[in-house]
Amino acid sequence: MAVTASTPEQTATTPDAGATGASDGYQTVPALDVHQVGISTPPQAHATLLGWNLNPGSGVEQLRRMMRLLSDDAVRLAAGSPALADTEEELARFPSRLTVTFGFSPQLMARLLPRQRRPRLAELPTFGQDRLQEQWGQSDVIAQVCADDPITLAHARRMLTKDARAFASIAWTQHGFRNARGTVPDGTTMRNLMGQVDGTVNPSPDDADFDGLVWSDQEGFAGGTFLVLRRIRMQMDRWDRVDRAGREATIGRRLRDGAPLTGFSEFDEPDFEATDRFGFPVIDPASHVARAHSTDPAERFLRRAYNYAVEDPDRSTGEDAGLLFLAYCADPARQFVPVQQRLDEQDRLNEWVHAIGSAVYAIPPAARPDGYVGDVLLEEV
Amino acid sequence: MAVTASTPEQTATTPDAGATGASDGYQTVPALDVHQVGISTPPQAHATLLGWNLNPGSGVEQLRRMMRLLSDDAVRLAAGSPALADTEEELARFPSRLTVTFGFSPQLMARLLPRQRRPRLAELPTFGQDRLQEQWGQSDVIAQVCADDPITLAHARRMLTKDARAFASIAWTQHGFRNARGTVPDGTTMRNLMGQVDGTVNPSPDDADFDGLVWSDQEGFAGGTFLVLRRIRMQMDRWDRVDRAGREATIGRRLRDGAPLTGFSEFDEPDFEATDRFGFPVIDPASHVARAHSTDPAERFLRRAYNYAVEDPDRSTGEDAGLLFLAYCADPARQFVPVQQRLDEQDRLNEWVHAIGSAVYAIPPAARPDGYVGDVLLEEV
Ligand code: HEM
Ligand code: HEM
Repeated sequence: MAVTASTPEQTATTPDAGATGASDGYQTVPALDVHQVGISTPPQAHATLLGWNLNPGSGVEQLRRMMRLLSDDAVRLAAGSPALADTEEELARFPSRLTVTFGFSPQLMARLLPRQRRPRLAELPTFGQDRLQEQWGQSDVIAQVCADDPITLAHARRMLTKDARAFASIAWTQHGFRNARGTVPDGTTMRNLMGQVDGTVNPSPDDADFDGLVWSDQEGFAGGTFLVLRRIRMQMDRWDRVDRAGREATIGRRLRDGAPLTGFSEFDEPDFEATDRFGFPVIDPASHVARAHSTDPAERFLRRAYNYAVEDPDRSTGEDAGLLFLAYCADPARQFVPVQQRLDEQDRLNEWVHAIGSAVYAIPPAARPDGYVGDVLLEEV
Repeated sequence: MAVTASTPEQTATTPDAGATGASDGYQTVPALDVHQVGISTPPQAHATLLGWNLNPGSGVEQLRRMMRLLSDDAVRLAAGSPALADTEEELARFPSRLTVTFGFSPQLMARLLPRQRRPRLAELPTFGQDRLQEQWGQSDVIAQVCADDPITLAHARRMLTKDARAFASIAWTQHGFRNARGTVPDGTTMRNLMGQVDGTVNPSPDDADFDGLVWSDQEGFAGGTFLVLRRIRMQMDRWDRVDRAGREATIGRRLRDGAPLTGFSEFDEPDFEATDRFGFPVIDPASHVARAHSTDPAERFLRRAYNYAVEDPDRSTGEDAGLLFLAYCADPARQFVPVQQRLDEQDRLNEWVHAIGSAVYAIPPAARPDGYVGDVLLEEV
């Protein structure tokens, strides 16, 4: 763990033979003092989510050893250095803003930690619209691995997977993507696979209330956060039958630029009271933004979603495509659940999207100096 | 097919709201007069290979209709315009150097075309080292879809898949990746997942002999080419046990920079005669480059490979990772097969890699004006 996020060695690394000029691949995300990276970090182009289940009979000591190893891998790889036992060290050379973010399930914590050490985190209630598949369910441990370069990401994934092998088995792997770095100017809101501008109304690290919304202040867990992960499938073939007006009414925003139906540009405030010449509301009260919008400022959270598209396992229906919905917040029960419940009750979007996977994780604060991610929870148990 | 590769409308497209500044996403690959794009095109970051089998009982008329539709999609999407029946037209806005390249199997051509119309293309002979799996085998039609942006690629894939549905079923989808645009300076040779610099010795469109190596001059097929596609799995866990010296000896080149073991930098000519102080050859005659290298200049071909890494279907052995080996050449039997046969007989790399998929395709020349890809073969049959 002696490697820091950006050392002179890394920036001085010689580029590949035959290559000249600057490259984004050297960019690193510096470690934060209190928080894990990959949360307030502007989303990278690619994400791989790794879900693990600890081997049967494993105790806190096994988890500690696993997290020591994986945390060390994460720090080194994020700095553009090979992992300790790296067998393809050249593939570590371009960190491309790599971040690895770890989390633990409530079930794992209940099994391994005394009650007074556990951060408060309830499983999600059941939602009527969900069509959950066991294969995308809760795992004991998660790593959210993100980078702008797919080769870097594949290599990091392999290092983590190999080092975890002695302790845990892979429950699932989920791959997500946003725009490649440079496709659109940095800071452009991405589009999801339904074609919508997705992520407009979202707390930004520059906002005064960001810290309170995202970082937990629970004793013994301060600086941590919680992740709600939902794999939400889009029924694209059925969505295709809806015309543009219907699509825009479903969300309450325009497809072209993401502006609210009552506004002119993406970041205009939607006016939920506005009515048209027949007296009907311009933004349908059953539209996704009307239902997801909260008048209670404490019901906000950070969305850090990725698109996904994989071959449907049974191949018959084409592809399984949708959104890896990731929400980070200080208190899921208070911030996330009421919104999800509202959407579950009524949301025009429900006609075409439904969660097929669901899980929650406690995301510990940053490792202590010379520590590892999770040390605040796992030490001296 | 009236849309050309780069129209004033496209370059004038307004960027997404909230975005300012230039972006690579608007870059297009202009259509070529004689050849399909995606072959001499510098490789984009991402590739999706779509394999289709025509519906049972389909004849040449069905294939014509399918190719008319798909060719039209390809031209529009490559220009940054929506496909004709595009349901998510905003996702077409950033072509990101999108190219779509189509090909037909020898079996399909034998079924649908009179002998004198068929370009000469034999199936590959069997190779002893292969461990072919039927699921990655020959399909009737292929589309190689490449782009620098993964959202653009996902959208193009969906449009093509939808438009092909009435005519054919998906045999397989294969996803490949190289470095993201901007990770390393343009023109840097990529690394494969074994960590090797892969693609150094490769004909370049600037070379005097490129055209002769790549483009066919067969009558009625001039300007076309042939694709050999091999899905080559790497046994990474076993490769991991090999030390660096052993790895470099296996290939005959250095891991650090891809230089031949007899040279100093990547593009130095390997010296296969050089011996060390014990009189042994510096480059093992059984190494991959010694075996793949040909003294016959007519045995060269264009490699345009992509890395792949997917979850292993049975989940037990970790991942199925390797190389989507794509070779384009004017005459596979003359150029590719002898090299593959040499490697099959002896190549130190065979210890850790083996093909699990294999197929060949005739890649027709560019569509005629107002035509479609394949028209030279399929019209007036
Ligand atoms: C595939 C499923 C989903 C799609 C396609 C989707 C799409 C969108 C779109 C296009 C917007 C408007 C632009 C923006 O502000 O980002 C939006 C807003 C929002 N969505 Fe979703 N969403 C999905 C699922 C969810 C879920 C599961 C939640 C939370 C439970 C959620 C919460 C929100 C919130 C809080 C907003 C901002 C509302 C406001 O204007 O205050 N969304 N979503
Ligand atoms: C996973 C399988 C493979 C791997 C990892 C691999 C790797 C490499 C590497 C690292 C090089 C040296 C750098 C370069 O010139 O690109 C190379 C060269 C080459 N490879 Fe492969 N290769 C594979 C399969 C194949 C196959 C199937 C063929 C053709 C049948 C082939 C043909 C060549 C040729 C022609 C060269 C250049 C040789 C020369 O120096 O003249 N490779 N390969």
